[in-house]
Amino acid sequence: MRKAYHDELDRIAESLVDMTHLAASAMSRATTALLDADVHLADSVITADADIDAQREHIDLLSFDLIALQQPVATDLRVVVTSMRMSSDIERMGDLARHVAKVARLRYPNSAVPPELRGTFREMGAVAELIVEKTGSVIAARDVETARAIAREDDAMDRLHRELFEQVTSKDWPHDTETAVDVTLLGRYYERFADHAVSVAERVIWIVTGEWGDEADGSHEDAEDADASPAT
Amino acid sequence: MRKAYHDELDRIAESLVDMTHLAASAMSRATTALLDADVHLADSVITADADIDAQREHIDLLSFDLIALQQPVATDLRVVVTSMRMSSDIERMGDLARHVAKVARLRYPNSAVPPELRGTFREMGAVAELIVEKTGSVIAARDVETARAIAREDDAMDRLHRELFEQVTSKDWPHDTETAVDVTLLGRYYERFADHAVSVAERVIWIVTGEWGDEADGSHEDAEDADASPAT
Repeated sequence: MRKAYHDELDRIAESLVDMTHLAASAMSRATTALLDADVHLADSVITADADIDAQREHIDLLSFDLIALQQPVATDLRVVVTSMRMSSDIERMGDLARHVAKVARLRYPNSAVPPELRGTFREMGAVAELIVEKTGSVIAARDVETARAIAREDDAMDRLHRELFEQVTSKDWPHDTETAVDVTLLGRYYERFADHAVSVAERVIWIVTGEWGDEADGSHEDAEDADASPAT
Repeated sequence: MRKAYHDELDRIAESLVDMTHLAASAMSRATTALLDADVHLADSVITADADIDAQREHIDLLSFDLIALQQPVATDLRVVVTSMRMSSDIERMGDLARHVAKVARLRYPNSAVPPELRGTFREMGAVAELIVEKTGSVIAARDVETARAIAREDDAMDRLHRELFEQVTSKDWPHDTETAVDVTLLGRYYERFADHAVSVAERVIWIVTGEWGDEADGSHEDAEDADASPAT
């Protein structure tokens, strides 16, 4: 019984790690599609989001069966329920990558990103990819130290997001409001992507240590947005 | 055992309904704070979000205990796990109301909303309030018919959101980009608020009928955003 339980739990964790790879790939390709105005790549991200959704359904089914058949209590139950929440977070990360891809597709053959902001978006894409890959390692190894470090990556994202916000709202913004709107939403998609990664990491910390981060309830941005660009 | 189980389940449903009232009040007050540039009201929304978060924790604890002590399977288990997801949705609705309040506070003593868009935001606020109150009734009565009708309220929100988007991105937009950024984010907060209400309604449909709406996985906007303003 215990063996079966732990095998099932391992399968769930592996599926979660797979999901993080899919989300990382999606955001990486979405960023490239955005910067290179590559509509085919954008379409591939949009289409592939169904795979992430399917992976989440798969994890839900595994988790349900595990609860129903093994009837875990206490810590074991906490792990299973938390896994279902992690799959929600990662699925949402996939949605956000898809949103980025949709903006890329919408502005094709132009790029939605003005030249002077390309560097910032490139960095946001790199941070997003790094943070979700680290999240995968954190899940695989139940690595609390790396989980805590993910908050620092998120600080980097918040800084980039703030920079973006300052440029868009500066009096010298040389572009039209359509571009400002695109940049505003894109910035929010990347920021939320990182927030969900932090939520996943904090859920792992909770599983391992029983400590709730302030944000292990999944509303990570709440603590952060006091310091971030206030309207975002 | 069954009696205790159903009593517990009723308590969870009541707590969820309470949460919808809190979220409705938060969004209603946030909208007023936004339109009237009422900083005290905005602060009250920001402070009161902790109550919604606490309510969600309470529901999580009830649900955990219920699973651990009663070991429900099949439909019963589905109901409990789905309740935890509904509490996540409603908590997030509270966060979005708080975001609206923060924009109101940030622009005080001015209003973040230009005069010609006040009507649109007033309508978005009214739709948001209506949709979350209906969501409460849907939970309380497990009312599938009303749950299905909530998708129509959401269509109204999407229409308003699209209108907003068209105005902000029109060539004649007479305001600065800071205002465009505020309006863009505010529009998204209201739209996401309605999306989460639809998710809750679809989860109730699932509990009652076993039918998954396309969006019962919580990613409601995915189906919608194909028709909505593409970048939002």
